[in-house]
Amino acid sequence: MGVIGLDVGGTKTAGILWSDGKVAARVRRDTDASSTETVLEVIFSACRQLMEMAPSKGIAVEAIGLGIAGFIDLEEGVITEAPNLPFHNLPIKKLLEGEFSLPIAVDNDANVAALAEARIGAARGMRNVIHLTLGTGIGGGILIDGMIYHGARGAAAELGHMIIRADGPRCNCGARGCLEALASGVALARKVHELAESGVSSPMLEEYKKSPGSFPASRIAEHARRGDGVAKSLLEEAGHYLGVGIASLVNIFNPEAVTLSGGLLGAFSFLEGPMRSAVEENAIALSRRCARILLGTLGEDAGCLGAALLAESYTGPKR
Amino acid sequence: MGVIGLDVGGTKTAGILWSDGKVAARVRRDTDASSTETVLEVIFSACRQLMEMAPSKGIAVEAIGLGIAGFIDLEEGVITEAPNLPFHNLPIKKLLEGEFSLPIAVDNDANVAALAEARIGAARGMRNVIHLTLGTGIGGGILIDGMIYHGARGAAAELGHMIIRADGPRCNCGARGCLEALASGVALARKVHELAESGVSSPMLEEYKKSPGSFPASRIAEHARRGDGVAKSLLEEAGHYLGVGIASLVNIFNPEAVTLSGGLLGAFSFLEGPMRSAVEENAIALSRRCARILLGTLGEDAGCLGAALLAESYTGPKR
Repeated sequence: MGVIGLDVGGTKTAGILWSDGKVAARVRRDTDASSTETVLEVIFSACRQLMEMAPSKGIAVEAIGLGIAGFIDLEEGVITEAPNLPFHNLPIKKLLEGEFSLPIAVDNDANVAALAEARIGAARGMRNVIHLTLGTGIGGGILIDGMIYHGARGAAAELGHMIIRADGPRCNCGARGCLEALASGVALARKVHELAESGVSSPMLEEYKKSPGSFPASRIAEHARRGDGVAKSLLEEAGHYLGVGIASLVNIFNPEAVTLSGGLLGAFSFLEGPMRSAVEENAIALSRRCARILLGTLGEDAGCLGAALLAESYTGPKR
Repeated sequence: MGVIGLDVGGTKTAGILWSDGKVAARVRRDTDASSTETVLEVIFSACRQLMEMAPSKGIAVEAIGLGIAGFIDLEEGVITEAPNLPFHNLPIKKLLEGEFSLPIAVDNDANVAALAEARIGAARGMRNVIHLTLGTGIGGGILIDGMIYHGARGAAAELGHMIIRADGPRCNCGARGCLEALASGVALARKVHELAESGVSSPMLEEYKKSPGSFPASRIAEHARRGDGVAKSLLEEAGHYLGVGIASLVNIFNPEAVTLSGGLLGAFSFLEGPMRSAVEENAIALSRRCARILLGTLGEDAGCLGAALLAESYTGPKR
């Protein structure tokens, strides 16, 4: 007995065969996001491949779980919108049920990552957990009493779009001063651009000016490590705002833990100090004292592990 | 069969006898907050009086519910801290059980007000509801799937202490830019003081200068109604920040409703426009479209009604 867990992102799709608390097999594909059909074909073929691998491992697949970077109408199993995938009101659940004749569980990718970290990762055994994925954007997941919190229409936990500086920079979502506009990869890239334009100079900014179009956010941490003061202060500022956002979440949720994952954690040594200071200064003592801030332990697997755990819950309670 | 619901505040204590979905009797006392003992005596005597009134109405009291302005350790039934009451680690549940030999339910006053508005008030029948009490400070309650959300240690829903302007004014809690520091009675009073000090003039500010110590926040709305431009713009600014806070809550919780109550709503005609514009500008469309912003319908009764509903849930599911 086992399940399939799939993490469908804008650039890659990862899948696992999950049985008896272990990963029994893996697949990984580039997501061809040129059309709805090409993405669906990636999803279908990844599932088929894992189904075919199952019998030789003595596993009967009982359900399929999907984590998808998008808004999901949970009642209908429909992907209503997806910023980086060509999906619009796609009845994904019905399509997969038709193809595989198995129970299908679908949820947002940050939600399932939160579930995985709280069940088998950094916050194992904790019941009220807030999860932030810090990457190009900032995603969020809310675990309440051990279950994913979805809100009225499945759109909850847009934690990157908490407003923490009402007069702050414009976010991609249209609002001003969202956490994502102050402490994400996109926010850092915008600041690098602004500083370079304003005539400030540093080794990092010189490198940026040579090829502004292909300067990855990961280079900021690299320059900070080499002593670039501009790079360091950018990361420290992002860490401060991250801490302000975490303080708000601690005051709102009184969680047992806030778990962090995502590419931006490559710069965590620069983010951490200002982040912890901001939490200390801004969160109410009672809640602050019981909220641990933890780095996720599941890395890139969090998505497909969470999708698998979700699928498992469709085949009866396992834990 | 019936229950007692008590709302214990820093200045007054209100109680009801609640039976069959109706208020059968009421008591109201000034809270003598000079010591733990004097407050307890107010609570005990209010309960006793309601107990004595019950038989003549054919009601047998089965449980007592309390809403208290403070932090409650729910597992132990202990009031750990209370800003406006002389309680510190007070085992209120045990004390009341000892006195009345009945099941005792205790919770934070804003939490029970949220419960009341969601069960029998403005958001009747809705399952995911956020409640804000806008008064001297800003309190909050979170209803998730129809139940009060408490967090890990009962300290959740400090929604007045969401940080919405990271560089903003200092809040009483020590943080900067909390919603409470920007859109509460205290925030308005601070702004009036600052403007008077800075030499700005208006009929409202002249009145303030005559007796700064006894200028109630309710006068601001009165002056705005009479056309005082300074008063009007202060309220509009508070309304804007209230809307920013609500937008954040909408993005975080995707609730069916945000309910509002409290004394500041006396100025709602000035707050409402900027509040709704800020929600429109800052909340994600999907969540914004399903979140209704509603004025509470239970008024000052919300607290004792919520406490009664909580007590009722101790005597078996009634709804």
